[in-house]
Amino acid sequence: MAEKPIILVTNDDGITAPGIRTLISVMNEIGEVYVVAPEGPQSGMGHAVTLNETLYCDKVIIDKGPQVEYKTSGTPADCVKLAVSEILKKRPDLCVSGINHGSNSSINVIYSGTMSAAVEAGVEGIPAIGFSLLDYSLNADFEAARPFVKKIVEEVLENGLPDGVVLNVNFPKTSSYKGIKICRQARANWVEEFDKRINPQGRLYYWLTGKFVNLDHGEDTDEWALEHNYISVVPVQFDLTAHHFIQRLNSWDL
Amino acid sequence: MAEKPIILVTNDDGITAPGIRTLISVMNEIGEVYVVAPEGPQSGMGHAVTLNETLYCDKVIIDKGPQVEYKTSGTPADCVKLAVSEILKKRPDLCVSGINHGSNSSINVIYSGTMSAAVEAGVEGIPAIGFSLLDYSLNADFEAARPFVKKIVEEVLENGLPDGVVLNVNFPKTSSYKGIKICRQARANWVEEFDKRINPQGRLYYWLTGKFVNLDHGEDTDEWALEHNYISVVPVQFDLTAHHFIQRLNSWDL
Repeated sequence: MAEKPIILVTNDDGITAPGIRTLISVMNEIGEVYVVAPEGPQSGMGHAVTLNETLYCDKVIIDKGPQVEYKTSGTPADCVKLAVSEILKKRPDLCVSGINHGSNSSINVIYSGTMSAAVEAGVEGIPAIGFSLLDYSLNADFEAARPFVKKIVEEVLENGLPDGVVLNVNFPKTSSYKGIKICRQARANWVEEFDKRINPQGRLYYWLTGKFVNLDHGEDTDEWALEHNYISVVPVQFDLTAHHFIQRLNSWDL
Repeated sequence: MAEKPIILVTNDDGITAPGIRTLISVMNEIGEVYVVAPEGPQSGMGHAVTLNETLYCDKVIIDKGPQVEYKTSGTPADCVKLAVSEILKKRPDLCVSGINHGSNSSINVIYSGTMSAAVEAGVEGIPAIGFSLLDYSLNADFEAARPFVKKIVEEVLENGLPDGVVLNVNFPKTSSYKGIKICRQARANWVEEFDKRINPQGRLYYWLTGKFVNLDHGEDTDEWALEHNYISVVPVQFDLTAHHFIQRLNSWDL
């Protein structure tokens, strides 16, 4: 690529989160960087879009750049839509989302605002990658991830991605990575444990909490890779059709 | 099944929407019905879950029953989690979501609160179906859909669904259905057209609007079926792994 690639950066932890600041800094080494990200945390927003509320999108300066930045009142998916349709003068060559504070491996991919931004870009035909680190702390150390983020982005810019596929990259909490492993999404789920409380007016309310339960110990899964200190890369698609079940469904009496 | 099946009903248009009232009435003919649904509209919420806010869930009586109903302050995915972990004494045999006012065919499946509720139930191992009608109007006529909803539910109760698969059922706007067609999700997307306005304080804001663009005219797609007045049934999975791309990714220099 002769000219510098145009890179759109977003996330779901909000534009000032250390994870996105690291990602912006790595992307500045590679391309011309535009940031369109939520003004505050949007974790667990899945692929929500804002239909019944207004959206604000304002230019901001957070550090010395050279990236150009906008914060929005919307969700991660809104950010990508706004960036592509309204903010960027040219179509981005790549969209990167993250680095998320916390895992988006396994079933977390469907709840993840980080990954929904990447998927939204993919739907719009833009190569996209979501990055996450298995450390929820605000002080999570993203330094060890930097060279791997750069490497993966460079490979995607060089090879492209097929239509309908984006990448879900997760980093284990350790910084002594054993390498990168291409994986499938493990079959796991959350078992909810609602924390029940009574508000000062005497009304019952709940906090959603839960325990992650993984019964899929395949060595080709993202969970296995992360437990064994590998960086997991799962190619993710948004054709949700369960093609393998179509033939059997056709035999039903419908 | 000797005993009546336990059926959980939810939606994303809110507990008083005509679509869910129709679905409850059909389910009362089949099973023991519990409704746990949002108190107001949650369209476009994708697979959002409520992590940073409190959740309310209160018993309500809306009609003469016999179903038991709860309204919540949460998203459709929250409703399923609350129902399964807190509200229902027994595990549901089936979860149905809808009938949505508006299409959830093609790429709409990833933005859909209706389908995220069905997917959430599927993740928790409960057979699940999302129903939608291609008519956004509050006065949409759900009567013609009733016998088909009943038929599809009875078939799922009889045959079960494989682990990891839920059904996405869409009804065309006509009430003269040509029949039911098992389909794959069409490859389509929305092209955004943000409606820009200035608020009374002089600040620019946006409304998200868009045009649905379908370039996939395969006769095996849901869009084709619906355009030709068939009811579309797409089996949907939540293993998002693009298995077909794993081998090529392994050949990258990562």
